[in-house]
Amino acid sequence: MKIIKTDILIIGGGPTGLFTVFEAGLLGLKCHIIDALAKPGGQCAEIYPKKPIFDIPAIPEILAGKLINNLLQQIKPFKPGYTLSESAKDLEKQKDGSFNVITDKGTIHNAKVIAIAGGLGSFDPRKPHIKNINKYEGNGVEYMIKDTKVFKNKNIIISGGGDSALDWTIELQKITRKVTLVHRRTEFRGAFDSIEKVQKLKNNFLIDVITPGEVIGLRGEKKLESVRIKINDEEKEMNTDFFIPLFGLIPKLDKISNWGLEIRKNSICVNNALDYQTNIPGIFAIGDINTYPGKLKLILCGFHEATLMCQAAFKIIYPNKKNILRYTTVTGIEGFDGSKRKYEGSTIKSIE
Amino acid sequence: MKIIKTDILIIGGGPTGLFTVFEAGLLGLKCHIIDALAKPGGQCAEIYPKKPIFDIPAIPEILAGKLINNLLQQIKPFKPGYTLSESAKDLEKQKDGSFNVITDKGTIHNAKVIAIAGGLGSFDPRKPHIKNINKYEGNGVEYMIKDTKVFKNKNIIISGGGDSALDWTIELQKITRKVTLVHRRTEFRGAFDSIEKVQKLKNNFLIDVITPGEVIGLRGEKKLESVRIKINDEEKEMNTDFFIPLFGLIPKLDKISNWGLEIRKNSICVNNALDYQTNIPGIFAIGDINTYPGKLKLILCGFHEATLMCQAAFKIIYPNKKNILRYTTVTGIEGFDGSKRKYEGSTIKSIE
Repeated sequence: MKIIKTDILIIGGGPTGLFTVFEAGLLGLKCHIIDALAKPGGQCAEIYPKKPIFDIPAIPEILAGKLINNLLQQIKPFKPGYTLSESAKDLEKQKDGSFNVITDKGTIHNAKVIAIAGGLGSFDPRKPHIKNINKYEGNGVEYMIKDTKVFKNKNIIISGGGDSALDWTIELQKITRKVTLVHRRTEFRGAFDSIEKVQKLKNNFLIDVITPGEVIGLRGEKKLESVRIKINDEEKEMNTDFFIPLFGLIPKLDKISNWGLEIRKNSICVNNALDYQTNIPGIFAIGDINTYPGKLKLILCGFHEATLMCQAAFKIIYPNKKNILRYTTVTGIEGFDGSKRKYEGSTIKSIE
Repeated sequence: MKIIKTDILIIGGGPTGLFTVFEAGLLGLKCHIIDALAKPGGQCAEIYPKKPIFDIPAIPEILAGKLINNLLQQIKPFKPGYTLSESAKDLEKQKDGSFNVITDKGTIHNAKVIAIAGGLGSFDPRKPHIKNINKYEGNGVEYMIKDTKVFKNKNIIISGGGDSALDWTIELQKITRKVTLVHRRTEFRGAFDSIEKVQKLKNNFLIDVITPGEVIGLRGEKKLESVRIKINDEEKEMNTDFFIPLFGLIPKLDKISNWGLEIRKNSICVNNALDYQTNIPGIFAIGDINTYPGKLKLILCGFHEATLMCQAAFKIIYPNKKNILRYTTVTGIEGFDGSKRKYEGSTIKSIE
């Protein structure tokens, strides 16, 4: 099997992981990113791309999705590799001091340095408390929507009162036979625009909305056939092909937790007094996934941690080479793709 | 005399000092900035406003001057105070644990927390090696141009081959009787545009350019009357009202150096394992002016240091109050000026 070799293997393609590619690139180090999501950007791209962030230094306001686009543009000259829709699973120390990291799909990566930039970890769906729900998972109960085609011309019941429930109601009513949105309050909490759209769909009889309502039981032989819904003090049985509870996600540290890393409160302990290295030499943890005295889980802190970490990575990868900090303002940027960016305004010229 | 009171007194109005205002503001803390320059922005605004920076996270390219403008816009809601064109000089610990900082012009500031964000310190002009030059300083020899009016209708000699010499030649020829630009090489190193302009001024006989040439002697009774210029192997005496050598600036730590702070290699030692506090409790050093193991003198590192420092400052200023980290994405920003910025797209609303 082919092994993907790189200088720094980055686990997690959120803002911290992406900026690592840039700082490593300035030092001539190649990076490869593993991420469980189908595209880079982490939470910013997946969960709240349309929400503004106000505390990125020197950017008074930016949408999370735009932040990721900016970072992708910034790291472009350094051409990172990607293993997407896969999760880092196994760690194997090699004889030469490097590490092999194998994903849940069996892809093997080899690097001397690992940077864990997993953010709040990967996510588990928050499940409703219905006794026999496990029986129907994959047989009519879905917590995440991966492939919309399976819902074509089906009856579906979506449960939840946030942006996910609203957005998927709007999206899936286009292809399903019928969408019923069930929420245990009458108030929905989400983008103003989405709430307006759902209201209009309901007014036009294109969807059903049941509030306050709660799915409390599931029935069916081999697969889901009907749900029991509590509406005020009454209960109602309703036929359906799918039940999709969208109650948000719970962060979890994932398979990395058995690598022997020192963990405290679901975060990885690092040496913040030096280089954000973990208890395993060569493995660093940066951004929201790490912890140390005074730690703040802010994107701008991840940027700093990534930068200092790359200096330490350089020493591990090139123990005999000297690395001098160069300022981009002075020397510009030379990409691995042959691209160059520098201050074009300055020149040396005689006056005659 | 009136005392300026604030929560955090920031010494140095460069990018790190400015961003401190933002992070302090999020915690409800007021800031006041002292800077030796006439406007905020430090080196970025004063020395290289037109040079691009490529390593600010999520900003692939930005002019240094624009970076400062962005920061000023970002901190605007938190209305910092400014004491400009003055240098912090004396430190006096008060009985209540706070500090008084007095500038070279006698302005008194009082704060419980001091954040030294002095960058590479203040700057001394690099002086030419001419024996009796001290005698004429302020009497015809100027190392920096503060008020251009004094040069009106005068003969001036500018010396130097960089951007400062080029820019001031262009600027001052508009108001002086005559500008002579002397440089010891024929090549000038500066903005392409400026070199072109100087060439054109010379071609049109609006200025004189002497290259290679070097001012090696100064003469005059009470004030400067003439200079001796070495041109190749000859020497020439030339009458002038002013001699302005623009050979760049040398950073210096300034008066702060006798405050009792632990200094190493012209930088202030701080506790990077916690909060970037110096050996004097209540005094922090952030950005390029501090040092610690693994320190990188990068703007993005100053941003991180400022952010962690503000958390520690909060505990000093409000020892009994609990501070919870709030995300701007979730809670938005509430300015001291009554302004509010938040995610306007989200709402809570019934669907009926």
